[in-house]
Amino acid sequence: MKPKEFLDSHKKERLDQLFEFLRFPSVSAKSEHKGDIVKCAEWLSGHLNKIGISSKIMPTGGHPVVYGEKLSSTDYITVLYYGHYDVQPPEPLNLWKSTPFEPIIEDGYILARGSTDDKGQLWTHVKAFEAYTATNSKLPINIKILFEGEEESGSENLERFVKEYKDMLKADIVVVSDSAQFSKTQPAVTFGLRGLSFVEVKVTGPDRDLHSGSFGGSIGNPINALAKIIAGLHDENGHITIDGFYDDVVEVSNFEKSEFKKLPHKDEEYLKKTGSKALHGEKGYSTLERIWSRPTLDVNGITGGYQGEGAKTIIPSWATCKITMRLVPNQNPNDICNKIGKFIMKICAPYVHCEVKKHGGAPAVIVPTDGPWLDAAGRAIEKGFGKAPVFMKEGGSIPVVGTFKHVLGADTLLLGWGQSDDNAHSPNERFHLDDFEHGTYAALELIEELSKVKA
Amino acid sequence: MKPKEFLDSHKKERLDQLFEFLRFPSVSAKSEHKGDIVKCAEWLSGHLNKIGISSKIMPTGGHPVVYGEKLSSTDYITVLYYGHYDVQPPEPLNLWKSTPFEPIIEDGYILARGSTDDKGQLWTHVKAFEAYTATNSKLPINIKILFEGEEESGSENLERFVKEYKDMLKADIVVVSDSAQFSKTQPAVTFGLRGLSFVEVKVTGPDRDLHSGSFGGSIGNPINALAKIIAGLHDENGHITIDGFYDDVVEVSNFEKSEFKKLPHKDEEYLKKTGSKALHGEKGYSTLERIWSRPTLDVNGITGGYQGEGAKTIIPSWATCKITMRLVPNQNPNDICNKIGKFIMKICAPYVHCEVKKHGGAPAVIVPTDGPWLDAAGRAIEKGFGKAPVFMKEGGSIPVVGTFKHVLGADTLLLGWGQSDDNAHSPNERFHLDDFEHGTYAALELIEELSKVKA
Repeated sequence: MKPKEFLDSHKKERLDQLFEFLRFPSVSAKSEHKGDIVKCAEWLSGHLNKIGISSKIMPTGGHPVVYGEKLSSTDYITVLYYGHYDVQPPEPLNLWKSTPFEPIIEDGYILARGSTDDKGQLWTHVKAFEAYTATNSKLPINIKILFEGEEESGSENLERFVKEYKDMLKADIVVVSDSAQFSKTQPAVTFGLRGLSFVEVKVTGPDRDLHSGSFGGSIGNPINALAKIIAGLHDENGHITIDGFYDDVVEVSNFEKSEFKKLPHKDEEYLKKTGSKALHGEKGYSTLERIWSRPTLDVNGITGGYQGEGAKTIIPSWATCKITMRLVPNQNPNDICNKIGKFIMKICAPYVHCEVKKHGGAPAVIVPTDGPWLDAAGRAIEKGFGKAPVFMKEGGSIPVVGTFKHVLGADTLLLGWGQSDDNAHSPNERFHLDDFEHGTYAALELIEELSKVKA
Repeated sequence: MKPKEFLDSHKKERLDQLFEFLRFPSVSAKSEHKGDIVKCAEWLSGHLNKIGISSKIMPTGGHPVVYGEKLSSTDYITVLYYGHYDVQPPEPLNLWKSTPFEPIIEDGYILARGSTDDKGQLWTHVKAFEAYTATNSKLPINIKILFEGEEESGSENLERFVKEYKDMLKADIVVVSDSAQFSKTQPAVTFGLRGLSFVEVKVTGPDRDLHSGSFGGSIGNPINALAKIIAGLHDENGHITIDGFYDDVVEVSNFEKSEFKKLPHKDEEYLKKTGSKALHGEKGYSTLERIWSRPTLDVNGITGGYQGEGAKTIIPSWATCKITMRLVPNQNPNDICNKIGKFIMKICAPYVHCEVKKHGGAPAVIVPTDGPWLDAAGRAIEKGFGKAPVFMKEGGSIPVVGTFKHVLGADTLLLGWGQSDDNAHSPNERFHLDDFEHGTYAALELIEELSKVKA
């Protein structure tokens, strides 16, 4: 039997096993699920061993990593597969049509927490491996597997782990299926991710809330002062005003411009998806350029003073906000944190105290579009999905991709089989059966296609 | 026995009775205290009847009013005494040195919720009346009493009540002791209060929180948009930029300028009291002018997006803030609400929805400084406190004072016996025994002095 025939003849088993995998409530953010996480890791590692991939559970300080490998020849290229077996919390439960950890099929979708993010997607690769091992077919690549258990709670221990096991994890290329296609009818290869920098700003005025009648007009109000800071971070064209913010920004390339124009993107449809009144962004760039190839700055939350019902006539003692910036090559997250910190101290009103907590972040990553890896992935996807993929980017960040580049020197192929409306972090998370099937076949083809690349 | 001798010989009784009054937890803001409010009103009304003032409890739709009167002659002037028997909530309880509704004496202070605001202060007048009635002395003025039960929860029913009982409440002058002296060693007559306008602003972007990676840069962020609005409400000199905001403002008079300069105010001491880094206000005005005679605008609270620990990388769906403006003569609260509403809609970014809820407010009030009433009050205070009062204003608002002027045509004498550090709305509310005593003697003298004014 050939690997492809094995997949064809084991459709039901593949799905049943995924359902078993999905039943573990492996919620990494909640300590009450610590035991479930371990059970899930043991099950996953056991399954890898069962299908002939040598696997073990490795501690990280937090939730464990499931590692696996099947190394066939030093002549072969080595592929590191990254995925995560932990999931987002399922809450709010009342908005689910089903039970989050009891998967069902509805309207052609697998409905369960983790179905698309990321158990369902990583499962396509596991089943592709099995198609080789179960049929005693020769695996033409060396396989290494890193399945993480804390992606949904910040991957706190992963960078340290990758550094510590640098030699064990060494690979020519990394494969990650933890994102989305361009649309339901258009598969894609993601060749770039934005980075992230995060800061928190606290502005302090009086040492306690003061009566706004007795004191109003004589001392500075920290909310007004914070608002002035925030307003000072963009100019009227949507450019960010922080000194040196764009110093290291690589301009949108001609390749990107032309690829993005080819995509079936429509501003009106996109606007509808956001539920906003109008689009708004940096002058001189298209929507896709704005979300994929240009850096941004958003206030994610703001707090200060009285927030209950009715009026409370105070000058509040303090106000805070959280700011994240999405970065593009070659911006450095710490450098950007320092620059915004310095700029805020510069523009902050002199009559309040201001403190900027710098949390750093992750750099943007890009996979060379002219190399052999993307071509190989493209061919595999075309075979698996029956349609050639488009090249797209993603505005979000997957920090570990930067770590792989930085520590292992390996690029990452971002091959998302999901859809942007799969409710990855929301109630009713789902993964279409077609995407599961096509993704599995593409994962199989990928093994063959990657083996042809000269490392 | 003369009235003054009665006060001298009943010092202990006066204090014991006040303690009884303070023991009622008459918290108007909490429905669980509704019964306590009624009991307190019954006790107070009963006491007035007992000392010879005809009193009744009158419903208002909310908490009742305690009304009382002793009308001696149509030839006499009629004085309406306003006070409130309800109190602020005592929370947070853990910050109290004592039990809020079990008054004690500590370091010369009466320590209890309501001691200065306003039970202790209104009690000085009640005891002054009693000094006359108990000694069968001839009361040389007609007395009307309006003790409110919802001052601390917004006096929602008072304006309607005053309008409904306009004839019953008709008076030549109103007396209110519900504020503070200039300092511990300097009694004062307050001849003006600022008014108030209150609005709430809501800015809406996407119809739900969006991922700031996937969407950041392409749609407007409501927090950033709200910050821009707030920042646009002041110019670099601390002036308010709202179109027409200063149209009706009466400039600081020469009388005010010279009176304020005489006061023992020191900016450094004042700054220390606020716990702020530096003073800040409208260019071209002194601190006392800024807080007493100039209009202001403060954001009292702001909310939007994620406010928990750590980062949540979202573009929030909405952001709101509460804004109060302190007004001076002759600004109209509704007019000012309309002006800020119009201005905010004008400067709000076009890519978000914006809504301004206008709550109106109260106009500023001023007592003519060249009339006979202030002179009479000044003489009474000098006799009661042993020192001539200064003329000051108050930056806060007492909306009912505007109602008295507007509906009854009567000016109000604001004769505060408390201190600004009496913790009126904070834990450990207190009222100094000296202020209680001096205030009671001043209240007694006031009866005599007011009777001399030709109405």
